[in-house]
Amino acid sequence: MVQVSQLAVPQAAPLIPRLDRIAYGGDYNPEQWPEEVWAEDVALMREAGVNLVSVGIFSWAMLEPRPGVFTFEWLDRLLDLLHTHGIAVDLATPTAAPPPWFLRAFPSARPMTVQGTPLGGGARQTFCPSSPEYASAAAAITTSLARRYAAHPAVVLWHAHNEYGGANGICYCPGSAAAFRTWLITKYRTLEALNAAWGTAFWSQRYSDWDEIEPPITAPTAVNPAQELDYYRFSSDAHLDNFRRERDILHTLSPGIPVTTNFMLANCKNIDYWTWAAEVDLVSNDHYLQAERPDNHIELSMCADLTRSVAGGAPWLLMEHSTGSVNWQPRNIAKKQGEMVRNSLAHLARGADGIMFFQWRASRYGAEKFHSAMLPHGGTDTQTWQDVVALGATLSTLSPLRGTPVAADVAMLWDWESWWALELPWRPSSELAFRERQEAFYEALWRRHLTVDFARASGSLAGYPMVIAPASYLLTTSDAANLREYVAGGGTLVVSYFSGIVDENDAVHPGPHPGALRDVLGLRVDEFLPLHADETVTLDSGLTGDLWAERVRLDGATVLASYLDGPAAGLPAITTHEYGAGRAIYVSTRLNGASLDAFVGALGLPARDLPAGLEVVRRGEYVVALNHTAAALTLPGSGVEVRSGDACVDGVVVPAGEVRVLHAHP
Amino acid sequence: MVQVSQLAVPQAAPLIPRLDRIAYGGDYNPEQWPEEVWAEDVALMREAGVNLVSVGIFSWAMLEPRPGVFTFEWLDRLLDLLHTHGIAVDLATPTAAPPPWFLRAFPSARPMTVQGTPLGGGARQTFCPSSPEYASAAAAITTSLARRYAAHPAVVLWHAHNEYGGANGICYCPGSAAAFRTWLITKYRTLEALNAAWGTAFWSQRYSDWDEIEPPITAPTAVNPAQELDYYRFSSDAHLDNFRRERDILHTLSPGIPVTTNFMLANCKNIDYWTWAAEVDLVSNDHYLQAERPDNHIELSMCADLTRSVAGGAPWLLMEHSTGSVNWQPRNIAKKQGEMVRNSLAHLARGADGIMFFQWRASRYGAEKFHSAMLPHGGTDTQTWQDVVALGATLSTLSPLRGTPVAADVAMLWDWESWWALELPWRPSSELAFRERQEAFYEALWRRHLTVDFARASGSLAGYPMVIAPASYLLTTSDAANLREYVAGGGTLVVSYFSGIVDENDAVHPGPHPGALRDVLGLRVDEFLPLHADETVTLDSGLTGDLWAERVRLDGATVLASYLDGPAAGLPAITTHEYGAGRAIYVSTRLNGASLDAFVGALGLPARDLPAGLEVVRRGEYVVALNHTAAALTLPGSGVEVRSGDACVDGVVVPAGEVRVLHAHP
Amino acid sequence: MVQVSQLAVPQAAPLIPRLDRIAYGGDYNPEQWPEEVWAEDVALMREAGVNLVSVGIFSWAMLEPRPGVFTFEWLDRLLDLLHTHGIAVDLATPTAAPPPWFLRAFPSARPMTVQGTPLGGGARQTFCPSSPEYASAAAAITTSLARRYAAHPAVVLWHAHNEYGGANGICYCPGSAAAFRTWLITKYRTLEALNAAWGTAFWSQRYSDWDEIEPPITAPTAVNPAQELDYYRFSSDAHLDNFRRERDILHTLSPGIPVTTNFMLANCKNIDYWTWAAEVDLVSNDHYLQAERPDNHIELSMCADLTRSVAGGAPWLLMEHSTGSVNWQPRNIAKKQGEMVRNSLAHLARGADGIMFFQWRASRYGAEKFHSAMLPHGGTDTQTWQDVVALGATLSTLSPLRGTPVAADVAMLWDWESWWALELPWRPSSELAFRERQEAFYEALWRRHLTVDFARASGSLAGYPMVIAPASYLLTTSDAANLREYVAGGGTLVVSYFSGIVDENDAVHPGPHPGALRDVLGLRVDEFLPLHADETVTLDSGLTGDLWAERVRLDGATVLASYLDGPAAGLPAITTHEYGAGRAIYVSTRLNGASLDAFVGALGLPARDLPAGLEVVRRGEYVVALNHTAAALTLPGSGVEVRSGDACVDGVVVPAGEVRVLHAHP
Repeated sequence: MVQVSQLAVPQAAPLIPRLDRIAYGGDYNPEQWPEEVWAEDVALMREAGVNLVSVGIFSWAMLEPRPGVFTFEWLDRLLDLLHTHGIAVDLATPTAAPPPWFLRAFPSARPMTVQGTPLGGGARQTFCPSSPEYASAAAAITTSLARRYAAHPAVVLWHAHNEYGGANGICYCPGSAAAFRTWLITKYRTLEALNAAWGTAFWSQRYSDWDEIEPPITAPTAVNPAQELDYYRFSSDAHLDNFRRERDILHTLSPGIPVTTNFMLANCKNIDYWTWAAEVDLVSNDHYLQAERPDNHIELSMCADLTRSVAGGAPWLLMEHSTGSVNWQPRNIAKKQGEMVRNSLAHLARGADGIMFFQWRASRYGAEKFHSAMLPHGGTDTQTWQDVVALGATLSTLSPLRGTPVAADVAMLWDWESWWALELPWRPSSELAFRERQEAFYEALWRRHLTVDFARASGSLAGYPMVIAPASYLLTTSDAANLREYVAGGGTLVVSYFSGIVDENDAVHPGPHPGALRDVLGLRVDEFLPLHADETVTLDSGLTGDLWAERVRLDGATVLASYLDGPAAGLPAITTHEYGAGRAIYVSTRLNGASLDAFVGALGLPARDLPAGLEVVRRGEYVVALNHTAAALTLPGSGVEVRSGDACVDGVVVPAGEVRVLHAHP
Repeated sequence: MVQVSQLAVPQAAPLIPRLDRIAYGGDYNPEQWPEEVWAEDVALMREAGVNLVSVGIFSWAMLEPRPGVFTFEWLDRLLDLLHTHGIAVDLATPTAAPPPWFLRAFPSARPMTVQGTPLGGGARQTFCPSSPEYASAAAAITTSLARRYAAHPAVVLWHAHNEYGGANGICYCPGSAAAFRTWLITKYRTLEALNAAWGTAFWSQRYSDWDEIEPPITAPTAVNPAQELDYYRFSSDAHLDNFRRERDILHTLSPGIPVTTNFMLANCKNIDYWTWAAEVDLVSNDHYLQAERPDNHIELSMCADLTRSVAGGAPWLLMEHSTGSVNWQPRNIAKKQGEMVRNSLAHLARGADGIMFFQWRASRYGAEKFHSAMLPHGGTDTQTWQDVVALGATLSTLSPLRGTPVAADVAMLWDWESWWALELPWRPSSELAFRERQEAFYEALWRRHLTVDFARASGSLAGYPMVIAPASYLLTTSDAANLREYVAGGGTLVVSYFSGIVDENDAVHPGPHPGALRDVLGLRVDEFLPLHADETVTLDSGLTGDLWAERVRLDGATVLASYLDGPAAGLPAITTHEYGAGRAIYVSTRLNGASLDAFVGALGLPARDLPAGLEVVRRGEYVVALNHTAAALTLPGSGVEVRSGDACVDGVVVPAGEVRVLHAHP
Repeated sequence: MVQVSQLAVPQAAPLIPRLDRIAYGGDYNPEQWPEEVWAEDVALMREAGVNLVSVGIFSWAMLEPRPGVFTFEWLDRLLDLLHTHGIAVDLATPTAAPPPWFLRAFPSARPMTVQGTPLGGGARQTFCPSSPEYASAAAAITTSLARRYAAHPAVVLWHAHNEYGGANGICYCPGSAAAFRTWLITKYRTLEALNAAWGTAFWSQRYSDWDEIEPPITAPTAVNPAQELDYYRFSSDAHLDNFRRERDILHTLSPGIPVTTNFMLANCKNIDYWTWAAEVDLVSNDHYLQAERPDNHIELSMCADLTRSVAGGAPWLLMEHSTGSVNWQPRNIAKKQGEMVRNSLAHLARGADGIMFFQWRASRYGAEKFHSAMLPHGGTDTQTWQDVVALGATLSTLSPLRGTPVAADVAMLWDWESWWALELPWRPSSELAFRERQEAFYEALWRRHLTVDFARASGSLAGYPMVIAPASYLLTTSDAANLREYVAGGGTLVVSYFSGIVDENDAVHPGPHPGALRDVLGLRVDEFLPLHADETVTLDSGLTGDLWAERVRLDGATVLASYLDGPAAGLPAITTHEYGAGRAIYVSTRLNGASLDAFVGALGLPARDLPAGLEVVRRGEYVVALNHTAAALTLPGSGVEVRSGDACVDGVVVPAGEVRVLHAHP
């Protein structure tokens, strides 16, 4: 039998150059505890195999208790202690939570809601992302921190800020208004260009002076959608400017140490992570289960695939997830036995080379004290602690997977601009929702054991046999050209309803819908037919749709299924169009459950003969199999099970709820 | 057979003196398109039979791009073009959407919500109706427009503003507060009178200075209801002042051209249209289906009847409706084949002499781009366009109906003051709702093929055999006297529960309820008995009620039905009282569906032997029959079917979903 | 047979020294009526047996129409009139509703919402409780009133303000912020102490200057819970300062006349009535049924028991309840025949020595005109009036019950601090609710005919055989010591889930949960297991729980029942622990209905052989029996039925819906 160690596995560059293992650890907030606890912490970290901790994320007030007065000594002692015990540090700039002195000194730096309410302190993220005072204060603490710790041997990674775009994602204060105008001048150069792009001939909105322009605050009616869309772009960019400022300081003062910031992929609508991913030295992500949701491990997989995709396929770091429940959902359901390990290894299977948690030790104080931790309130005499120690050991056996690439079967288009635009007010149906369609298609593919890469409509698609566009409402003319070229070159494009309708200004493409896609789809849509709340439509292929139908007229396409009833009875429901060397499939209603599964099943994707509930992902020569069921399942294949080192020729039995990793015979 | 043209039909004065046909057209926003499109527009208007378009409604920023700088040239060219092609113009003052420069120059002119949030731009109606700066700017653009186009031969109608009282219906800003105080001084003259009317002895609210008075902004508890009620009156009047200002300018500068403004009858709670109707030269109305609602054509009929009623029975103009879906409802259900034509002719049947749409050509930009149009995104190769052309042809055959009066069977009381007062906070049940009762009674009458005139309690009722008062919570002493006189004179008055309770100050009439009506009804109500959420009560006549019951004691009335169960078990539920030469019927619970139908059926109204789902309305010698069912139905009678010119002796077959117009034998 | 009058009943000091009867009457607002109505009022009061009326509660603007200008003459005449007719007066300071001139003069004295919205007038309670201008104006009117009426013979009681902490319970204005800082300085003395108590090391919240501290206004995320908790304390104290100011003026100027203020016990979360009760000369309470709720008489009993408990077992005054419906609930269900009398006597049975109503005469004006009254709109020819007269007569027969103590069977812990803390954001389940658990346990005890005293965890518990802690999330270390001592001394402590978790700063007690109770309970909770929305769990004892389960590990306790299913399957659900001479029982899931009844039934409490629906309460030698069913029931026992004077040897028959009072044989 071939041993794992005998194989020459091609390895990518390590995720964190100075860390030669799978990263393992969590957020560590020693400032909440007396220093005598620190020694216990470090000893327990060693016991659990922790090799990396994120430090200082919310320490601004502890590091700079008054403006310009720094108290780094405690952090000096902490980093020395960690380094002495071989624990590396992901050192954070503490800029996500300005101290109370900052808010008192600069009341205008507070974020403001869309109704004009300035928000208060005692929380976190109480700052306007466009505030010059905030920029200045954040630069100062970042500079001081970088100067002091650039050369500290414990520091292997910089963690800029925390979860940009979360609680203060979009600010509507006067300072943001001024910054928005500056951003618009840079983008449009002339008012004529802005007036044209925003269609200000509508509703008497023509601007004659830049200073007339405001954020889209609450107004008597819906606000200009192009203005709303640019405000999303501006807001994502405002946060990005803050990140860039810190990153550039860190790069200058601490060369060679990578800089990241923790994304919230798939769950943060406010940040265009495609743009952001190009700016970080490595992609890291926070993921929390939607605890009350059945099969929430599929949503986890989607987020992990999206994280890998924005990372361009490179390894990434799971910066935060939880050992058990969180505390901010309506019902914070605890994890079941084995679930934490499965969650961790699912991220690993989909490209993560590090598994970190919020948080190392549960707080006694503050808003997050009921959030789970590696070391819970109950201490080491708990199941959680045992699982944490076991996971550390497991990760050390999985080191060979580091750097290996994940193999995908199909691409799905995901675009924040479509998300923003689709969910603006006054669409044909208020139930149109970006994530709902993404998740529905993703889940159908997941259940067929297919691995997904996410892609942009403007990106390189040539490598994918199929590209699925679930909710691609906004497609630019050049996006459309790229998709056309993809199909012409032999690809299969699958498009869901209400896609390709508008351009980058939320302006309807000229002519019949869907303007960006009607040639490649070989059809036109004469009328949108939103359905009633409980209405369903039946197709002659037996499928059932809801929410939406359309009056489709063929213009080259052929019918795969027609409506039997509802407002489009007798008209095409699903079509296919041969275009160049490829084809384009269109589905004009919302399919879910068995109907979506049947639709996806008929697309000609690879059929995997694997048991239901067994999640199987290939990383390089390794196959990770996660059993989400209550019965043992068998992963077919032969090779070596990495965790045990056992050889297997007739498949690997994966016990109920467990995970096995097969190093396949080459 | 008698030909239509041979009949001497008495015609009222034409709706628009300079337009000798049924008006047909829509809102036209050429400023959204390059001028080369205008020529196509005009050609297509001709093809469709369009003879009137509303121009300039949202053009302020295009006409006055900077304060005092006007760019009328494009509008000159447009009006000339339209006139050249024989298309008349309903020219709008663009004052519903002040330009961005206005908002920047006068930030205090923004409307403010009841919570004190000033509203933003990028929308429409961003102005305080009491703003002096707005008044001044609106007068200036109106004056300039009137001066320039008073004599333009294309202009046959002025369209002041757009939908007064819609999105900025009630403003709570400091400027509105000041205007409210002025309004109150005019109304009450002395603080003593105001203190008495508002009952300020309650809760220590006695005013000692006019400047102490505020709008009813959000307060710790419910606010003085008399203050709330006066604020509704003030707000309707504030908008009316704006209308009067524009109308007076237009009358002065453009004599002979009628001035209208588009009402939103039955759907705008903020505007007292009885008062407003006396101020316009002709009544015009906007109506949009409540798309998700079953049988929404009945609501359409109610709105059309209410429009005719506030117009005093004179012909009116349907200024806006839609060819298909709108874009601002939760689910914008499209119209079914034939529905747009039925909607149009239902308005015509109930007194409209013009059928107009929002909008001529669908926008590519802005908040309304998914609103349907006469010329949709798909262009002329669409079913919508075919229907628009066909409707134009149909309307030309129906010209003889112009000016003919609609014959009504019964009157219903409708009063904005009761609407306002009934739905203030802290009523016996928060489910009491004005429109709900109006619609319930209207629908029961509609299903019995009866046509309704709406009336005020203070109005002339003598011509009606029956007057129904569905939700007449507020009745003044003189209203009550008028109703008493009506019954004494032989009329039948039907009163629903919780009517006649308060006077014009929302003060309870002295003595037992219902103070304004207990003599004419011959009873007193000792206690209101709101029902539980799902509770129903059964009457000994077999009817079922919900929501409400009362402890009724007879004082002259006799019992028609009693409660079998519930909190009023054994007590009278429905009574009748002979009073003078007439009688007054009282129903003390909420009847719906079959129960309300049975109640209405027993009132002695005319019985029409017509098939269910066939809407039949008589205008002069014409009978319009609209088939809302999926099977052909027959309208009894003989005469000439106007659209086809066919004579018929044994009734007219109305195919499923279609409309026929019978010119009855004299 | 023994006559009631022959018995020497030990009487407590009278509730109101100058009133030698059970108080009977209501709020009287003569300023709303012309003076000719006053004479009728007084005559009718005599007819009804009214002996006490609350006067002047909302008369500020009538008494001081301009600042410093007083118009007491009308009140002079009124008090003289009342006194002449032998009706005593509970004279109110009118400070709950500052006049309009006050709001105009001091706009900064308005209360502000958590979003920063200043609230308006036209209502009541429009004042910031921390406003110095309000304090000054309130002191001035109180002083003037006290000077003028201190010696008036009609005045037997002072009614300070009205319902402190109601509509303006918590204010977030800048003035409140300043007062909060002052309060914090008094409490903590040093910023170090505050930083430690609030755990400001979390999320960079460390304060370096008192002026940095703000109220917990709306923030980007949840605010520091210790800050929130102190803001609740501060707000309750801010109102208390207002009360103390008025009380001290009254005590000084009007010695010998007791001062009260009407509490809203069980229904006002904002006021810590344990603290307040020590400040009033007698406890009075307002209670309104939750009209739509079934069995709302049980909630009434709970509120009455809580009122008696905060009064330390002394007699108390029911200051307000209603003869029929109120007007501020969604559906203001009327009372059924007999219900008003049962409500009144239920309060009496549980310790009230006075029964008062809001209001004497129904208003014609204002926000409360649809609230029921002793004299309704319909006047004296109504059932309501007959019932009011009959109740007056009944109360006069029940005079012997005055001052007798109520006998309780069990104590329940009730603590406003736990209420505040438990319902802060970001708890393990957002469904955790203080009152829900209190009511559930109370109802189970009520249905077993057991009478409850409420107690504080820090209070004297020794007299109770059992103490139940339904939702005691916050317990201080000394609370815990007190409970430990109680059990060690032989008591039985019953604890429901998620109790004893945090200390007075909402900081988790060190070590495993529940930190304050794990020794006395003999267990630890390793993990909270909130359940899904519709999830239930089954215990092996047959009970069913929902909402919550826990991972309980025994540490001395023994298992009474285990989970059969759900996330804690196989683990302990209900435990008991022998501790010292007593025992501590723990229930780790939410039991309701039959399950909670079975649980409570097994606790070993006294079993009362009484029919279901017969509420039986013992006051001294009297037993009050209230029949809440539709059939006659028999109260066992012998003695004299007080209302009739009839002797009975074999029990008293209580007719359906009626009340009987048995004076038991000694």
